[in-house]
Amino acid sequence: MAISIAHLGPAGTYAEDAAIACGEWLRTTAGVSTELRPYSSIPKTIRATESGETQLSVVPVENSIEGSVTTTLDTLWQLDRLQIQRALVLPIDHALISRALDLESVKTVYGHPQALAQCQGWLERTLPDAQLVPSHSNAEALHRLDSEPQAGAIASRRAASLYNLPILSYPINDYPDNCTRFWVLGLTPSPGGTHTSLAFSVPANVPGALVTPLQIFATRNLNLSRIESRPSKRSLGDYVFFIDIEASVDNVAVQQALQELAQHTETLKLLGSYSIARTA
Amino acid sequence: MAISIAHLGPAGTYAEDAAIACGEWLRTTAGVSTELRPYSSIPKTIRATESGETQLSVVPVENSIEGSVTTTLDTLWQLDRLQIQRALVLPIDHALISRALDLESVKTVYGHPQALAQCQGWLERTLPDAQLVPSHSNAEALHRLDSEPQAGAIASRRAASLYNLPILSYPINDYPDNCTRFWVLGLTPSPGGTHTSLAFSVPANVPGALVTPLQIFATRNLNLSRIESRPSKRSLGDYVFFIDIEASVDNVAVQQALQELAQHTETLKLLGSYSIARTA
Repeated sequence: MAISIAHLGPAGTYAEDAAIACGEWLRTTAGVSTELRPYSSIPKTIRATESGETQLSVVPVENSIEGSVTTTLDTLWQLDRLQIQRALVLPIDHALISRALDLESVKTVYGHPQALAQCQGWLERTLPDAQLVPSHSNAEALHRLDSEPQAGAIASRRAASLYNLPILSYPINDYPDNCTRFWVLGLTPSPGGTHTSLAFSVPANVPGALVTPLQIFATRNLNLSRIESRPSKRSLGDYVFFIDIEASVDNVAVQQALQELAQHTETLKLLGSYSIARTA
Repeated sequence: MAISIAHLGPAGTYAEDAAIACGEWLRTTAGVSTELRPYSSIPKTIRATESGETQLSVVPVENSIEGSVTTTLDTLWQLDRLQIQRALVLPIDHALISRALDLESVKTVYGHPQALAQCQGWLERTLPDAQLVPSHSNAEALHRLDSEPQAGAIASRRAASLYNLPILSYPINDYPDNCTRFWVLGLTPSPGGTHTSLAFSVPANVPGALVTPLQIFATRNLNLSRIESRPSKRSLGDYVFFIDIEASVDNVAVQQALQELAQHTETLKLLGSYSIARTA
């Protein structure tokens, strides 16, 4: 039976690219076939796996230019059962897709706010007079092109071929080294690997509450490859912290740190321990 | 002569509310009058003050629900001369504004992505079938109402009265304690106060590079009220860190920490030392 993978849809999103890469990984390493299931938002994608509707979900965590995908972090903080199975890093190269004859004819550009932001410099130089209009997804932006011949949309080359639309310019992202990290989530225990991710909240309004957790890692020489604070949504200045440790959860120092951390945090969630795959 | 204050426009944005509060503070404490100048983006607002076009600018830094305003942090990291003069905390209460007769008639809701996110629960419960359309600003969303009688927009009550538009429901934000922190920026040296903010980058791909800076604060018992990582835009996993310390830059321990930090960071920027004002 095929393994079901939830991802942010519709067809043509970068999240679908990541789900395809995840399917490829499962095919080559475990010899299993996969079935992709698009959902209309990141929270719905994650919850599909938490509820058992799909076996896995693939969601963006962080982009090299725009930073954290906060919806993913906020949704995971609300849930208890999902574990990270693997991380995937995908290059993100944007194309300007349009039915217009040439760049001069493009008067409006649709794109997801992150895609518009990642091409801001190119757009200002090349299409200084075009109106930039945010859309919910790059794929939704592409749908505008059918009725608007003077419009362009920012999306992937794969999306252009999928919807049978011409590419006017590629690549158009301002930073060539643009990539996004995705997490593969599932209900099975994490496999362990090169990284361990966790999230925790500290008692509110206690001075020094963040110092202790950070010291716990520092004294053991455990390197944090990432630390991200998200508002707890209780009050300004009250945070949830997301930390990536460059070590497996099987590591003795990590085990000791987690035990000590549990005594100094309000809520502590082990999100998983896993390895990272890069795709070209 | 009036002191000029740059803010994100057009009229009716929450940023304008903050600029008005800043003007009020200058009037009552220094007896000076102020003149508000709207700009079309946060980077343009900040750069107006860096270039001397305005004396001050007021920009959002962080919302209690949605987290950091990353454009503000990324722009400040690129500049060298601006100093934080003060922080302002403003409550953010959203209203659903529309020319429709009642809630049942509202088929489309326009709003800034952050405003839509902050009212997501209310929108799902009250208008489950309405189409949610992101706009560049809440004020831009209001402009749609003139031509679309079945549309609603999310904005402040002040914006509704400014544009002479009816409020259908208020407040509609999911979390009652919703507020945003703004920074007042200027070219004059920071006044000092209860908080010190700084930003730094660490050498890329050096294991433990983040551990040392955090230990520098921890060993001096300096509490960090906030730590935020932003991508350096060089490569995935390479960050710039923004830190708020709960102490004045005049504090001896802060001075010592900054000196030590300078030896362990690639670039270190003191953004300012200032006090925080809360407005009702």
